Amino acid sequence: MTETLNTDSMTDLLSPHAAGVEQYLRQWLVEDQTPPALAEAMRYCVLDGGKRLRPALVLMTAEAIGDKPPCELARRASVAVELIHCYSLVHDDLPSMDNDEMRRGKPTAHVKFGQAMAILVGDALLTRAFGVLGESDDPRAGRLVGELAAAAGAAGMVGGQAADMHLCDVPDGVEGLDYIHSRKTARLISAAATMGAICGGANSSQLRAVDNYGQSLGMAFQLIDDLLDVNAPAEVLGKTPGKDQATGKRTHVSELGVLRATELADELTRKAVAAAAELGESANALRRLGELLTDRSH
Amino acid sequence: MTETLNTDSMTDLLSPHAAGVEQYLRQWLVEDQTPPALAEAMRYCVLDGGKRLRPALVLMTAEAIGDKPPCELARRASVAVELIHCYSLVHDDLPSMDNDEMRRGKPTAHVKFGQAMAILVGDALLTRAFGVLGESDDPRAGRLVGELAAAAGAAGMVGGQAADMHLCDVPDGVEGLDYIHSRKTARLISAAATMGAICGGANSSQLRAVDNYGQSLGMAFQLIDDLLDVNAPAEVLGKTPGKDQATGKRTHVSELGVLRATELADELTRKAVAAAAELGESANALRRLGELLTDRSH
Repeated sequence: MTETLNTDSMTDLLSPHAAGVEQYLRQWLVEDQTPPALAEAMRYCVLDGGKRLRPALVLMTAEAIGDKPPCELARRASVAVELIHCYSLVHDDLPSMDNDEMRRGKPTAHVKFGQAMAILVGDALLTRAFGVLGESDDPRAGRLVGELAAAAGAAGMVGGQAADMHLCDVPDGVEGLDYIHSRKTARLISAAATMGAICGGANSSQLRAVDNYGQSLGMAFQLIDDLLDVNAPAEVLGKTPGKDQATGKRTHVSELGVLRATELADELTRKAVAAAAELGESANALRRLGELLTDRSH
Repeated sequence: MTETLNTDSMTDLLSPHAAGVEQYLRQWLVEDQTPPALAEAMRYCVLDGGKRLRPALVLMTAEAIGDKPPCELARRASVAVELIHCYSLVHDDLPSMDNDEMRRGKPTAHVKFGQAMAILVGDALLTRAFGVLGESDDPRAGRLVGELAAAAGAAGMVGGQAADMHLCDVPDGVEGLDYIHSRKTARLISAAATMGAICGGANSSQLRAVDNYGQSLGMAFQLIDDLLDVNAPAEVLGKTPGKDQATGKRTHVSELGVLRATELADELTRKAVAAAAELGESANALRRLGELLTDRSH
């Protein structure tokens, strides 16, 4: 009950941006000369899905700094971040990776189109993320490419997935989970906020506050995702719940228990809210996002 | 005999640049904070391999236009193009794609590290290609990102691979082969030349000549690759020869026969040589590259 209520509140907060993001995605996703079957598979994996947290965060942060309505570069950045997120879902779902069959309430890409197409769709989305930025005439586009690539690449999300799949050594216990989650989840969420801040023309102290905000929010987000895997029903998740426990996956919940994991999530969101407060009243939506995220885990 | 001789000549032409490229790759491939096992797999898939045709082409074209020695952006662009090429080999070799076990004379990435790691290494290299450009302070970096993404993405190389794997409809006969090869092979080779030209500060007529050069060279390159698959021994190829015929793969050779395919390759390289000639004496190396490529097919 509480879950549904709070999810609704979060949807309310994100939805004006999410609607814009949907439009920008439709505008920029598919280039001319794309083979139609590939274009269709790309649309399947991107459109009409998810809360659009990351792209909304780009736009909300840009607005918080003063770019309201968001400039074209911020809109492009929102698309780029979401395409990185979507590609990572497609590749992570593959049989040789996490082997998931449902995603956002639909069959995953490899179930729908086969493995070869799923690999190629992921590659296409990843490439297009950078293309959408590179097509911009804005001189800050190159800097956004650098931010996004650092967050998404070997030292960021890809490295986190490799570590999560036991393909790389990680420290024991909670330190190891932090090693994985900071790379796999928090880094891209944090980059979304930073990219928005750059588009908004943030000064160095604003950038520092946004960075603190994004990192705390990102780590909280992964924790809450793990808590929801324990607590929430499939129709809320849009994917199979209880999977972590069934597969013996180590999470903050399995390491610390639900109570301590919830406390930790609260602590992180409090930090995020405090960082948003440093940005002043224009960042009220960012602050509210932090508060709603905490509520979600309860 | 002729093959060995001409391969040596081509190596002679490319090797001064290839040596530089090797150094730039070592410098920029692995970011701090990359999990060591992932870094090792990335190095395995990138270093000490191949003729480095594409990155050499970036540098040669930059020099032909007047950027001699190549500026940092041109060096970064050479790395970016090679990383795109390397990632595409890693993903194309996967069991659900072309299922190749040998590449550049070594076991392919998925044979060496497993499928999950091979997918992630490919993703890491693809992301890093754009990161290497995005880290640059040069205001032209964004434009190079746009060029590279267009060539590598759904309307370019990824689309070509999807079409080549029969995942998309293609026209019948030679037209279909042109549809595939222009996307899968020629587009990235052409982008390499264009990126070099941008770094060199090319004007619009120079850019047009470079574009003609790159497209002709790229189409010729694929044709000659198919001819070598029929004619050359494994130690020259670094991969299994005769595979096209064994797998019933349609190529210009199977569609047109060796003689006509060779004539077509000659015609394309003549066009490339003519386009290089338009750029004047400073483009002698580009002209020579075209000539050597023709010789290779005989």
